[in-house]
Amino acid sequence: MFRSLVKPESIAVIGASHNPQKIGYVVLKNLVSHNYQGKVYPVNPKGGEILGYRVYTSVDELPNVDLTVITLPAESTVKIIEDVAERSRFIIPIAGGFGETGEKGKEMERKLLEAARKHNTRILGPNTVGIYIPDTGVNTALVVPERSRFPGPGDIAFITQSGALGLLTMDSVAMYDVGFSAFINLGNRIDVNENELLEFFGSDERTKAIVMYIESFRDGKEFMRVASEVNRKKPVVIIKAGRTEYGGKAASMHTGALAGNDAVANGVFKQCGLIRAYNEVELIDYARALAYGKPIMGDRVAVVTSAGGVGVVTTDYIEGRDPGIEMKMAPLSDGTKKRIKEEVVPFASVANPIDMTAQASDDDYDGVLAALDDDDNVDGILIYALFQTPLISERLVDIITHWHRNGRKPIVVGTLGSEFAMKMASRFEKNRVPAFIGIERSVRALKALRLRGKYLQRVSDSAKL
Amino acid sequence: MFRSLVKPESIAVIGASHNPQKIGYVVLKNLVSHNYQGKVYPVNPKGGEILGYRVYTSVDELPNVDLTVITLPAESTVKIIEDVAERSRFIIPIAGGFGETGEKGKEMERKLLEAARKHNTRILGPNTVGIYIPDTGVNTALVVPERSRFPGPGDIAFITQSGALGLLTMDSVAMYDVGFSAFINLGNRIDVNENELLEFFGSDERTKAIVMYIESFRDGKEFMRVASEVNRKKPVVIIKAGRTEYGGKAASMHTGALAGNDAVANGVFKQCGLIRAYNEVELIDYARALAYGKPIMGDRVAVVTSAGGVGVVTTDYIEGRDPGIEMKMAPLSDGTKKRIKEEVVPFASVANPIDMTAQASDDDYDGVLAALDDDDNVDGILIYALFQTPLISERLVDIITHWHRNGRKPIVVGTLGSEFAMKMASRFEKNRVPAFIGIERSVRALKALRLRGKYLQRVSDSAKL
Repeated sequence: MFRSLVKPESIAVIGASHNPQKIGYVVLKNLVSHNYQGKVYPVNPKGGEILGYRVYTSVDELPNVDLTVITLPAESTVKIIEDVAERSRFIIPIAGGFGETGEKGKEMERKLLEAARKHNTRILGPNTVGIYIPDTGVNTALVVPERSRFPGPGDIAFITQSGALGLLTMDSVAMYDVGFSAFINLGNRIDVNENELLEFFGSDERTKAIVMYIESFRDGKEFMRVASEVNRKKPVVIIKAGRTEYGGKAASMHTGALAGNDAVANGVFKQCGLIRAYNEVELIDYARALAYGKPIMGDRVAVVTSAGGVGVVTTDYIEGRDPGIEMKMAPLSDGTKKRIKEEVVPFASVANPIDMTAQASDDDYDGVLAALDDDDNVDGILIYALFQTPLISERLVDIITHWHRNGRKPIVVGTLGSEFAMKMASRFEKNRVPAFIGIERSVRALKALRLRGKYLQRVSDSAKL
Repeated sequence: MFRSLVKPESIAVIGASHNPQKIGYVVLKNLVSHNYQGKVYPVNPKGGEILGYRVYTSVDELPNVDLTVITLPAESTVKIIEDVAERSRFIIPIAGGFGETGEKGKEMERKLLEAARKHNTRILGPNTVGIYIPDTGVNTALVVPERSRFPGPGDIAFITQSGALGLLTMDSVAMYDVGFSAFINLGNRIDVNENELLEFFGSDERTKAIVMYIESFRDGKEFMRVASEVNRKKPVVIIKAGRTEYGGKAASMHTGALAGNDAVANGVFKQCGLIRAYNEVELIDYARALAYGKPIMGDRVAVVTSAGGVGVVTTDYIEGRDPGIEMKMAPLSDGTKKRIKEEVVPFASVANPIDMTAQASDDDYDGVLAALDDDDNVDGILIYALFQTPLISERLVDIITHWHRNGRKPIVVGTLGSEFAMKMASRFEKNRVPAFIGIERSVRALKALRLRGKYLQRVSDSAKL
């Protein structure tokens, strides 16, 4: 059913506009520039033509469509909802001024819902930035194009109760070529809710990981049922905001819903094996690690670096707590140590962290990864790809990608630097290798893979009972 | 005395080279491109000319100089050290292969030190990337220029036991125009140590904050004495690596020194009021907050945002613990609320966090900052500058800068996004406004200012006793 929402074959835009500042123009513009293949029906009483599309003067003229985007104000939206609902499988009313403003707005929401129910139509929103589906060019979000970016297609589905936070988060990672399969803003959530969407993306082949920003659950029990089912198939990462008392109050000011007890939420996440993120950076970092990486099935991590200090700080994070992830530095086998020292890099420190020093070459990295891949004492590898030293080239990206794809061990890549590091991070991203700029982010991603490993072990153990 | 190191009026480079891959060339090249005004004496047995400088064929020919950089291998360095020490106030032997490799190397170090003592000369290193002084172009660090960046001049002095970690950290922030007054890598630290440098930068007018990366202290007691004195004058931020047992072992592999007990170190930092960072991002973030910002003298924070979800997540971080900073959301005075609602932004949510929504304009931000500046219930402000909405312009940078400079309240700026956000972050940086990309980084910077405020309060209280 949600196929009509995320892959509509026909779209009506009520409130289509010639004004490039208006969402009724931007939606059409995005469809044109993405070479959208479906049918498009702009509606505006003035008629004429916008961006080559014939403009319909009234909803009455419209044929049946998969999706209708209404960009009119709240009152006007209510006036035409019945006619729209008759002709559309999904409706996105963008306007605010509904339930979030008080009783009058709530009454208007009831009218929307009534019309939808009557015509067996579904509503996303209202008071929503809507959806963004990179594959198709369906984009109902209005931002200033010179000052923000939309990501391209990718593996992550994003379900969010906050439109702005969602858009800002996507903007922040688009620069690194992180991609999304879909972005959906729930808005006031009078009809379509997170549980249905979670279930849908759970079965969506395009989606490898699901991220959620939620301030309040529509139906906690149902969430638990769906989440525990979906999370077995593919990883779900969630920010549950309003986790503190005051944060809960702030959430209720924001989306009008009560945040609930955080200890309960936390218990549910643990039970379902969901990975909890606390901010927008973690949210996407964890999703990338889980979508691209292998789960880590034990606590022993090998760290490879060419910068000694980076190795020491990383070791503290791996073994430490507060801050730290309470895993273990892998005790490398004697065979591995010998192999690294004798065959690969005689000058390296072969205790873990393996410090290859600034003299390390691409081939040295290849040799070390080969040795670690064979070592049964190693459950996962954190490798720093530092491009600042003379014997390292861009080929290191290919070498690490090779071991990520063909090796036995889960690999997380850390990197540090500015423009060049970012360029390399984008290349790792295109290869679907989880790479992160900065020590803490790299180590936390490792932890997400470990939590996934523990969860899968638990699921597999309980299946044996 | 350290003036001859960080602002040398004459520099000799032993091992000067025509080969652009060699440090003996790069050092000279940097001096030329920074239009270094002092005297330069390259030394190479072949003589001739490099980059317009006359090359001396032997150390014997050299006049007295402030600083000599030796780029020769360890054995050759030892051979000429006596002649160099006779003529130079400071010597930086770059080469590794000394004490970190074993007893033979230690013996060579003793010879270096003997020569230095005899001629009343000081040695930085050996086994060091040396120094980088952005103001003057004195740069002894070798990296691949197309793949890394050096920051420009600025307010932060960086003393580090790990050269690579230091260079990578500077590379990472150079993109945002973060600047440094000096960068000094201690290397094997046979002579010049962190305590002397800390004391020096404590009195250096150019330096507004000092950052340190330390794996082991040369003299813990002396550190405590110097740090507590310096930190009263200007903030000191420190990564003490090797904080875990295994991390301590990794540190001893790296710099050969024992890491010591972390609980003791932590106690010392607390007593001296040093801000502890745990990774390279925090290190510079905290230094920037402290160098540019005002200390926060109470726990009550006002949060201003145009994205509701960002406000909720931030609230959780401010009030929360693990993760969180255990401060308080400021209870805005009725006067402030009224002023914001009636005079500034009628559509905004005036409870704290103040959600201005996507309709907010530059002037709205100005009005809200004016109101918060007058509110005695507010100890500090975290303002999100989100440039993605239509009514916000680049002028917002100037407005926030104005309140940062002329207002009563400490201000931290948060932002989210990609290229444009980075550009704006650079503008804030140039204005010396502490701005951070991402929620967690912004909140942590707030905490650093609060810790500084608590420390200054304690110092002032104890002065009254």
